[in-house]
Amino acid sequence: MPVNLALPMKGDLKPIHGVRLGIAEAGIKRPNRKDILLIELALGSTVSGVFTKNRFCAAPVQVCREHLAQKNDPIRTLIVNTGNANAGTGEEGMRRARASCDALAQQMNLKPHQILPFSTGVILEPLPIDKILAALPSAIRNLKEDDWYSAAEAIMTTDTQPKAASLQINTPEGLITLTGICKGAGMIHPNMATMLGFIATDAAVNQTLLSQLTQEAADLSFNSITIDGDTSTNDSFIVIATGQSSVRIESQTSPTFLAFKEGLIQLSILLAQMIVRDGEGATKLITIEVGGGKNTDECERVAKAIAHSPLVKTAFFASDPNLGRILAAIGYAGIDDLDVSRVQMYLGDVWVAKDGGRNPNYQEADGQRVMKESEITVKINLGRGDASRTIWTCDLSHEYVSINADYRS
Amino acid sequence: MPVNLALPMKGDLKPIHGVRLGIAEAGIKRPNRKDILLIELALGSTVSGVFTKNRFCAAPVQVCREHLAQKNDPIRTLIVNTGNANAGTGEEGMRRARASCDALAQQMNLKPHQILPFSTGVILEPLPIDKILAALPSAIRNLKEDDWYSAAEAIMTTDTQPKAASLQINTPEGLITLTGICKGAGMIHPNMATMLGFIATDAAVNQTLLSQLTQEAADLSFNSITIDGDTSTNDSFIVIATGQSSVRIESQTSPTFLAFKEGLIQLSILLAQMIVRDGEGATKLITIEVGGGKNTDECERVAKAIAHSPLVKTAFFASDPNLGRILAAIGYAGIDDLDVSRVQMYLGDVWVAKDGGRNPNYQEADGQRVMKESEITVKINLGRGDASRTIWTCDLSHEYVSINADYRS
Repeated sequence: MPVNLALPMKGDLKPIHGVRLGIAEAGIKRPNRKDILLIELALGSTVSGVFTKNRFCAAPVQVCREHLAQKNDPIRTLIVNTGNANAGTGEEGMRRARASCDALAQQMNLKPHQILPFSTGVILEPLPIDKILAALPSAIRNLKEDDWYSAAEAIMTTDTQPKAASLQINTPEGLITLTGICKGAGMIHPNMATMLGFIATDAAVNQTLLSQLTQEAADLSFNSITIDGDTSTNDSFIVIATGQSSVRIESQTSPTFLAFKEGLIQLSILLAQMIVRDGEGATKLITIEVGGGKNTDECERVAKAIAHSPLVKTAFFASDPNLGRILAAIGYAGIDDLDVSRVQMYLGDVWVAKDGGRNPNYQEADGQRVMKESEITVKINLGRGDASRTIWTCDLSHEYVSINADYRS
Repeated sequence: MPVNLALPMKGDLKPIHGVRLGIAEAGIKRPNRKDILLIELALGSTVSGVFTKNRFCAAPVQVCREHLAQKNDPIRTLIVNTGNANAGTGEEGMRRARASCDALAQQMNLKPHQILPFSTGVILEPLPIDKILAALPSAIRNLKEDDWYSAAEAIMTTDTQPKAASLQINTPEGLITLTGICKGAGMIHPNMATMLGFIATDAAVNQTLLSQLTQEAADLSFNSITIDGDTSTNDSFIVIATGQSSVRIESQTSPTFLAFKEGLIQLSILLAQMIVRDGEGATKLITIEVGGGKNTDECERVAKAIAHSPLVKTAFFASDPNLGRILAAIGYAGIDDLDVSRVQMYLGDVWVAKDGGRNPNYQEADGQRVMKESEITVKINLGRGDASRTIWTCDLSHEYVSINADYRS
């Protein structure tokens, strides 16, 4: 049961001029399930991507990097399959990823390097390429602009519901529309996650600015969430700018650039938080704000130590203000010269730890009250600088164990 | 239900001449439960300790470090309480840790700095010092040599059974006896764990050699296990050499030294594995051997990435050979120049991943067979050097969540 996550309303998901979506059922893992998504882009679109840092990155991730690196021909179509990650599959996995690009290029009258392939699902199993190839004609036939809801459904794995949102920005140059979809559930961790995210806009954004904005948005959103600390082999976050609206984003100093950047980050965070809200077995959304650090890196280390601690996460699941576990996580986060007597900790509005020890005015009943909420903020001040970092995570429940013990069966 | 962990047989636990044990029930957390242990050492004993690296280390850990650092008077008594960690308790926590040393010193005619205090239990709650002081006379009255089984019981927290073992070594200079006890269960992670470990021997070992051996034994045992990746505020591993036997260990090159070292490491590993076997909710003991690394450090990082992955741990719980999760963990362990095409992975005797991809001869039924066993070895070869590292861990079960969601209630 996701945490305060409403189903997207189909009417709220705005089509993006220049993007068409095609869905098919290839029966990759199970029959009668949408498992293929094509995203076709109009000529003139720019595309940028941020990918997993996992050394065992999947074959499609390697192919994506290659195809984005070539500058001869623009990217024109993305193909996504669920049910199989095509990771840990060696040379044969690379051949199959390329085969899907080859077949799609031929049917769409493109070159193979104009296709970006994406896969998500079980690792170490051969990609059933024949099933995928057989489904391509039907996916191509289905291509249409107004189908983002189905697109969000087509990329789900252990997600309990589709994740999608749109956002519109009025700029001096006109209206910009952004629509995004993502999938997550487990193996979610910065850099990045078993996570696929796609955002498209009708603004025109030049390649340099788009690459920079994609990385910035990823860092503040999909790279700021963690479910279980596992970094997947397949994470990909793609931003597409079709340029079909009148708005041109060409300079970092223009008000339009700033408005677009803010909107892109806002939508990315919204989508990333949806992943946490629907984290495997999640019953609570936890925001961890670490401030007072010497630099962002040490704040991030503290926030992640808390976010990854199974003891902290099970305490949140139980609504048990066993808050010493948070102090312990701060203590082992690797800041060797941390003066714990300067550390403050708040749970919601309750000041729990003062100057490194229990706040004499702290009442367990106050901690208990906050722990019972479904969205909880932990604030830490390290008392040694001005840097800060925010990370979102969820609790660790029985359901997490059930889901991951049963995932393949 | 611990994994293949027999109860220690009282008759197998050898007394160590020069060590007396005193147990009491102070009612620190619950009534009618052994929760105080005194370990009294004969004059002439040497003592060495390795402690948590957590910056929020508990008050007793700080006092232990101080008392071990002073060379004026030898350590003569250890006092251990369960039920409260006296961690995250600030200056008042320090005062209470010292108060227990003061009171015990007075009653035993020692100086306070001849006492080492240890606490384990809930963090961030005030130590009920009055209860501890009230129980001291009874603990002192109970002091006797032959009570290691009760001593092991007295330091348990969420452990389901006492952990203790003895070992005897025939050396050219005579018989050496070692007896050890430990407690673990959750918050177990290298450097070190919610872990207390005490080993005593009747050999005489000079202070320099004892310190060196204590660190070496800790690294290969208690610093090589992990339950949940959480590093506790209270971990302590203490080795005591009473010198009451005829055996003197004074040179690193003597056969006696080598025999003693081997025995100490063997006993430490045995005790450390008992902690994993009785890890919170554990149903399996997993040995992770990473070889072929450029150095020990990178092997350790890979082994820990696997050992800490909730996805890997839940797959072991489910006996599901979802082994791609292990490859993913190798990939995000932080070896930036890892050539995955040189990586081999074995599950027990089954060659699963060959040259970075699925071994063409691998049959899922073979993986399934190994996954059903209660003790499983994962072997990884990184194919880039000669270094290796072994880490022990357990699976992640429903029971882990239950225990940690209910720990305080």
